[in-house]
Amino acid sequence: MELMELKQQVVEANRDLPRQNLVKFSWGNVSAIDRERGLIVIKPVGIPYPELTVENVSVTDLEGNVVEGPLKPSVDLDIHRALYEHFPDCNAIVHTHSTYATVMAQLHRGLPCFGTTHADYFAGEIPCVDALTDEEILENYEWNTGMAIVRYYQEHGLNPKDIPAALSTNHGPFTWGEDVWDAVHKSVVLEEISKMAVHMLAIEPDWQAIPRVMSDKHYYRKHGAGAYFTNDDYGHGMIRRK
Amino acid sequence: MELMELKQQVVEANRDLPRQNLVKFSWGNVSAIDRERGLIVIKPVGIPYPELTVENVSVTDLEGNVVEGPLKPSVDLDIHRALYEHFPDCNAIVHTHSTYATVMAQLHRGLPCFGTTHADYFAGEIPCVDALTDEEILENYEWNTGMAIVRYYQEHGLNPKDIPAALSTNHGPFTWGEDVWDAVHKSVVLEEISKMAVHMLAIEPDWQAIPRVMSDKHYYRKHGAGAYFTNDDYGHGMIRRK
Amino acid sequence: MELMELKQQVVEANRDLPRQNLVKFSWGNVSAIDRERGLIVIKPVGIPYPELTVENVSVTDLEGNVVEGPLKPSVDLDIHRALYEHFPDCNAIVHTHSTYATVMAQLHRGLPCFGTTHADYFAGEIPCVDALTDEEILENYEWNTGMAIVRYYQEHGLNPKDIPAALSTNHGPFTWGEDVWDAVHKSVVLEEISKMAVHMLAIEPDWQAIPRVMSDKHYYRKHGAGAYFTNDDYGHGMIRRK
Amino acid sequence: MELMELKQQVVEANRDLPRQNLVKFSWGNVSAIDRERGLIVIKPVGIPYPELTVENVSVTDLEGNVVEGPLKPSVDLDIHRALYEHFPDCNAIVHTHSTYATVMAQLHRGLPCFGTTHADYFAGEIPCVDALTDEEILENYEWNTGMAIVRYYQEHGLNPKDIPAALSTNHGPFTWGEDVWDAVHKSVVLEEISKMAVHMLAIEPDWQAIPRVMSDKHYYRKHGAGAYFTNDDYGHGMIRRK
Repeated sequence: MELMELKQQVVEANRDLPRQNLVKFSWGNVSAIDRERGLIVIKPVGIPYPELTVENVSVTDLEGNVVEGPLKPSVDLDIHRALYEHFPDCNAIVHTHSTYATVMAQLHRGLPCFGTTHADYFAGEIPCVDALTDEEILENYEWNTGMAIVRYYQEHGLNPKDIPAALSTNHGPFTWGEDVWDAVHKSVVLEEISKMAVHMLAIEPDWQAIPRVMSDKHYYRKHGAGAYFTNDDYGHGMIRRK
Repeated sequence: MELMELKQQVVEANRDLPRQNLVKFSWGNVSAIDRERGLIVIKPVGIPYPELTVENVSVTDLEGNVVEGPLKPSVDLDIHRALYEHFPDCNAIVHTHSTYATVMAQLHRGLPCFGTTHADYFAGEIPCVDALTDEEILENYEWNTGMAIVRYYQEHGLNPKDIPAALSTNHGPFTWGEDVWDAVHKSVVLEEISKMAVHMLAIEPDWQAIPRVMSDKHYYRKHGAGAYFTNDDYGHGMIRRK
Repeated sequence: MELMELKQQVVEANRDLPRQNLVKFSWGNVSAIDRERGLIVIKPVGIPYPELTVENVSVTDLEGNVVEGPLKPSVDLDIHRALYEHFPDCNAIVHTHSTYATVMAQLHRGLPCFGTTHADYFAGEIPCVDALTDEEILENYEWNTGMAIVRYYQEHGLNPKDIPAALSTNHGPFTWGEDVWDAVHKSVVLEEISKMAVHMLAIEPDWQAIPRVMSDKHYYRKHGAGAYFTNDDYGHGMIRRK
Repeated sequence: MELMELKQQVVEANRDLPRQNLVKFSWGNVSAIDRERGLIVIKPVGIPYPELTVENVSVTDLEGNVVEGPLKPSVDLDIHRALYEHFPDCNAIVHTHSTYATVMAQLHRGLPCFGTTHADYFAGEIPCVDALTDEEILENYEWNTGMAIVRYYQEHGLNPKDIPAALSTNHGPFTWGEDVWDAVHKSVVLEEISKMAVHMLAIEPDWQAIPRVMSDKHYYRKHGAGAYFTNDDYGHGMIRRK
C-alpha cells in the first residue's frame, strides 16, 4: 500500500469517530503503521475532525519524530508507539473517550464476557490494566500508559490479536486491528457491549462472565482454523473497506 | 403470495432493523417461511443491510439446504428452522442483539409484565429460556438454541402466538409473528419495554409483574374473540404493510 | 374558535408526539374539548400519526358518541371524558407511554419535586394515583382509569391547574392544559424530569423533594398574581402557538 | 471588540444550546460581558432560540438596568451579574438544565474528578455549592443564587479560572470562560462527564476521585506555563471561534 493510501485511510477513519458517536470535540485519535517503511500516520493534536486532511495529518518515524505534516502529532502518540512496538500484528489503533467504555475504565473494571455479542469479537475479558505509579505518571506518562497495556498482556499471557481492546484505568478505551476499519469497528463493538455491561451492573454489581465453553464457541466459529461463520467478502463485519 | 414478494418483504424487513435502531453492523436477521412451498427466505451471513437484495437473499428448504442465492445463509438459520418446525402459526422471525433486551438476556431474567405497554402485546412474561448444556453448545449449537426456546414453551404450556418473543440466555431476543412486519414490530416493542424494565430494576431489583386481571384486560381488549380495541386497517399497529 | 381550527390543532399536536420522541407506533393520543359546543376532538384508535387528518380525526359529544369522523375514537376516550367532566379548566389532554414517565408509573412512584426544573411547571409532586380494584378493571376500565385520577385530586385537595400531570399506575402519564400546545409541552417536561428522577433514584432510592419554600418560589415566579418571570408572548414556554 | 460582535456571539452561542442537546424549550441562557463598556449581553426571558436576534437580545449595565433590547432580560440575570462582579477572568457564562449535570445538582453532589476526561478541563472537583437559606430564597433569590457560587469559591480557596463550572443545588449547572465559545464548550464537557458519573454512581455510590498526581498531570499538560498538549489554533478544543 502506498503511504498516500494509508494517510487517506487514517483521515477517513478519524472522521468516522464522531459519525459513530464515539467522540466529542477532538477526544479521540486513529493511527496506522506502515511496517515496511517504518512510519506511523496519526491525527495531530486538537484538530477538529472535519478539518483533518491528507495534507495536515501527521507522519512520524518509529521513534516519534515528525517526518511529514505541519502540526504536532497527537499527545497520545507514545501510547500508540508502545503498542505498535510490542504487538506485531497490530496495524492500526483507535483511542476514544466513548461514554460507557470510559465508565468501566473509571470504575477500574475490565469487561467480562457477559454474552455472545462480546464473544463474537473478543476471546475473553477485555482487561482494565493496572494503574500507573506516581513515577510513571510524572515521567514519560504517555509511553508508560501504553506500556501498562503491553505489560498486562505479557503478564497474563493474553494474545492481543484475540483480545484487541483494553481499558486504560481512569482514562478510557483503546482498540486495535489489522487495519483502521477493523480497529474502528472494534471501538463501536466495545462501546455497545460496555453500555450493556454498565446497565447490567447497575442491577447486579457482581455479575460474572458466561461459561467459557459458550464464549469459545462464539469466538471460534468466527475466528481461526475452525471458523464456519463467514461469508466471503462479508465475513469480517467491517464498517467499510476501501 | 409469490416467492418474489416474500423475498421483497424479507429484504425490506431486514433493512428495517438498523432504521429501527435494533442492530449495529449485521447483528440481526429476519426470515420468513413459505409453508406451501416449504421454503425459508433468510438474510445471508454478514452482509451489510444496504447491500441486501432479492438477488442475494438466501432461500433454503426446510432442512436448511440452499435452494437460491449466491451466499451462505445466516449462521442462525437452524435457530429459525427449529422455531418454524414447532411453532406452526409463526410465519416470520426476527433476531437482534438490541441493547436492553440483550441486557435482560445476559442477566438471565425474563421480562415480567411490568405494565400495560407490555400487556398490550404479550399475554404474560417474556421468558428467558434455559441455558444450554455444554454438549448442546459443542454439537448442533444453533439448532439447540432454537430448541431451548421450543422446549420452554412446551414445558411451561405457553402459546407462542400469545407470547411471540423469547430471550435466549446470554445471547439476545427473538420475536415472531404472522408476517415480517408483525415480527419486526414485536422486536421494537420488546426493546422499548426492556428499556423500561432495566431502568426499573436498577431502582427496585425485585419488582414484580402487575396483577393478572390487569394484564389480561389489556391483552384481550386487543386480541382474541372479545377484542374491542381495533380499528379496521389500523388495528394491528404494524410498522407498515406492503 | 371554529371547530375546524380545533381539529387542526388536535391533528398537529398528535403529530408532535413522535416528533418530540414521546411515542412509538400509535402509543399516545391528544384530545381537545370545545366546551361551548360540547364536543371532544380526539385521535382515532391505532392510526399512524402521519395519516391523521382533519377528515379522519374523531369528534364525539360529551357522552362519547361519535359525531364526526369515519373511524372509532381512541380506546382511551373515556379516560379523557372523565378528566374533562371533573377538571373544568382543562381544555386539552395528552396521553403517552413515554419511557421514563412510564418507568415511574410502573414503579408506583409519584414524581417528587426534585429540583427547579420541576418547580418551574408543577406546584408539587406529580402523583401516581391509586391502582384500580379488580372490579374497576373488569367493568368500565377506561372510565375508571380517568376517575382514579379525578378521585386522587379530590381526596388530596390538589388543584389540577397547578399540577397538570398525573401518572396512571402500571400504565403511564397524562398531562393537560389550556390548549393542546400547553398539554404537549407539559408531556415533554414530564418526560425530562422523569428521566432525571429515574437516574437519581438508581443512586439514591429514597431521595426526597426539595424544600417547599424553594419549589413555591420557582412555581410562583412564573404562575399566578405575583409572577415576574414572563415576557409578553414568550412567557408560556410553549412549543408553538398557531 | 465592537458591541455588535459581542451581540452576535451571544445570539449564536445561545442557539448552540439546543444544537448541543443542552436544553429543551428555553431552559438555558448564555451571556457575555463587555468589561470596558460595562455592559452585559444576555438572552431575554422565554424567547425560543430560533427567534433570538441581535435586535431583540438584551443589553444591560452592570447593575442590571436594561440599556438595549425590547424584551425583559433572563430572570437569571442577577446570577450572571454576581459571577461577573466577583470572577474578574470570567467573560461569558452559560446556564442550562442539561440532564445529567442537573441530576448531580439535584442529588447535592459535586462532580469528583473521576477520570482524565474531567482532568483535561477542570483542576479538581466541580462543586455543588451550599443550598440557600429560606431568607435567601425569599429575598433577592437570583442574586443569592449567584453569590452562593461566589462564596463557595472564596471559602474553599478555589480559582474560578481553573474550575470554570459549578452546580447550583437543586437547580442545575453554570459554566464560564474567556468567551462564549469557551463557556459553551465547558457546558458540553460538564454534561458528558456528568453522564459518566451518574452511570458510575448507580454501580458504586461511593466512588472516589482519581489520585491528584494524575488529575494534575492531565490538567497541567493542557493549561498553564508547563503545557505541552496544544497545537497552535487547535489547542483550545473549542466548538468554533468566529
